[in-house]
Amino acid sequence: MMHNLTHTVTFGDCDPAGIVFYPNSFRWMDACFHDMLARAGGHAGLCKEIGSVGIGLADASAQFRSPMMDRDALSIRLLGIEWGARALTARYETCVGERLCFTGTEVRCIFKKTDKGISADTTDALRALLEERLNG
Amino acid sequence: MMHNLTHTVTFGDCDPAGIVFYPNSFRWMDACFHDMLARAGGHAGLCKEIGSVGIGLADASAQFRSPMMDRDALSIRLLGIEWGARALTARYETCVGERLCFTGTEVRCIFKKTDKGISADTTDALRALLEERLNG
Amino acid sequence: MMHNLTHTVTFGDCDPAGIVFYPNSFRWMDACFHDMLARAGGHAGLCKEIGSVGIGLADASAQFRSPMMDRDALSIRLLGIEWGARALTARYETCVGERLCFTGTEVRCIFKKTDKGISADTTDALRALLEERLNG
Amino acid sequence: MMHNLTHTVTFGDCDPAGIVFYPNSFRWMDACFHDMLARAGGHAGLCKEIGSVGIGLADASAQFRSPMMDRDALSIRLLGIEWGARALTARYETCVGERLCFTGTEVRCIFKKTDKGISADTTDALRALLEERLNG
Repeated sequence: MMHNLTHTVTFGDCDPAGIVFYPNSFRWMDACFHDMLARAGGHAGLCKEIGSVGIGLADASAQFRSPMMDRDALSIRLLGIEWGARALTARYETCVGERLCFTGTEVRCIFKKTDKGISADTTDALRALLEERLNG
Repeated sequence: MMHNLTHTVTFGDCDPAGIVFYPNSFRWMDACFHDMLARAGGHAGLCKEIGSVGIGLADASAQFRSPMMDRDALSIRLLGIEWGARALTARYETCVGERLCFTGTEVRCIFKKTDKGISADTTDALRALLEERLNG
Repeated sequence: MMHNLTHTVTFGDCDPAGIVFYPNSFRWMDACFHDMLARAGGHAGLCKEIGSVGIGLADASAQFRSPMMDRDALSIRLLGIEWGARALTARYETCVGERLCFTGTEVRCIFKKTDKGISADTTDALRALLEERLNG
Repeated sequence: MMHNLTHTVTFGDCDPAGIVFYPNSFRWMDACFHDMLARAGGHAGLCKEIGSVGIGLADASAQFRSPMMDRDALSIRLLGIEWGARALTARYETCVGERLCFTGTEVRCIFKKTDKGISADTTDALRALLEERLNG
């Protein structure tokens, strides 16, 4: 596991069916990713270093395995990152104790301003910074 | 197109990068699905009719094509539903004028309480009700 | 009434008690304020004109009169703005048909970067722009 | 202090001005209140014991003193509860280290179903349960 974020589900995270309103799952994957980045300088700091306007989303998905309920103590785990030339894929799983609640992936690009608008930069610079700073 | 929901992006939908915080995309697909259900009796009413505790998510994904900005007038479109035996797949696209912002899918199950817990019911009953009431 | 924003309550706006999760009321007042600003150039545009980093909150309050439920068609109304020297007070009420759901106020300041950090600017410049552009 | 909840501000909590989108402050006060209730049986459990459909809001307010930024480690503090006959007032303050970010109050009622609809019950039963269970 590359990073772990914990969150206790609260009343306001849940919907009239009494379970977590599913878009919150994506909020938590995003929060886990940013929490990992914080260990390496943070999103704003890293973007400045690599000349990016943001490490944003190209694709996001989640597979819901068991419902999350009020007061569940979630462990949101960034399992690892697969590095492509111009995109990275972050893989997640979220558990309550032994129980798997959802798995998910985020495909992120390193967006850069160019003459022609916003485009996806190569991932090498970010990869080097994360590998150097997270393994220390 | 099966259903259309409009939403003008507001300041609070956006993140420090100045574009829509991506989990909101899933809130809007969910809102579009429920808005469609409202034309056929609504989520609560339909669930009562078919003996379900909720038409919930098994899988959700989105592909982000162009950034959504403050004041963008979104057209969130439920393109159609593919019916499986125990799951339905709803397909979406969201545009600002001619510009495609994101596509997405929700795989939903009709959850039912059984002796063994919650399980996915057959989709026939919901399909029949939607086909009858939305084509009228 | 100075401005009106409509929103149909959706499933995901509601909590396990089946009514709107109350912090959403503040999201809607904020959205109504920004929607009003959009008629006069928008938050980003106006801030640029008056040299502000943001028209942000000093105080916010709401009084809940009757519960908002799934599918309620809300009319979120900015009743008016009272102008102080360095703060403005926006007054709201939100109804479903004739039924009053909540009233609220936002006290906002025009934040400006100075040598000593962020401080509240005078409101004259914004007031003049809004009065000129909204009464046209 | 009666209860303390911690939360590290994440990217998605912030708006295009780069500071916390203010309605989140109310989400955090609500989460703190529910986290306190969890020590005494939880919202659902307590409501069952006292025959209530929910301990909901009559009034909420916040005074913003200094901006909350990405990565700020918030301490959301329920300072105490003042008990009225048919309403309770919960007082909060939220700090980052020594820095005060916002103060707030929630006025909550114990809603009960009656022949004439929903009304505010007396607070004695909840008060007795909380005093017994939180001081143990």
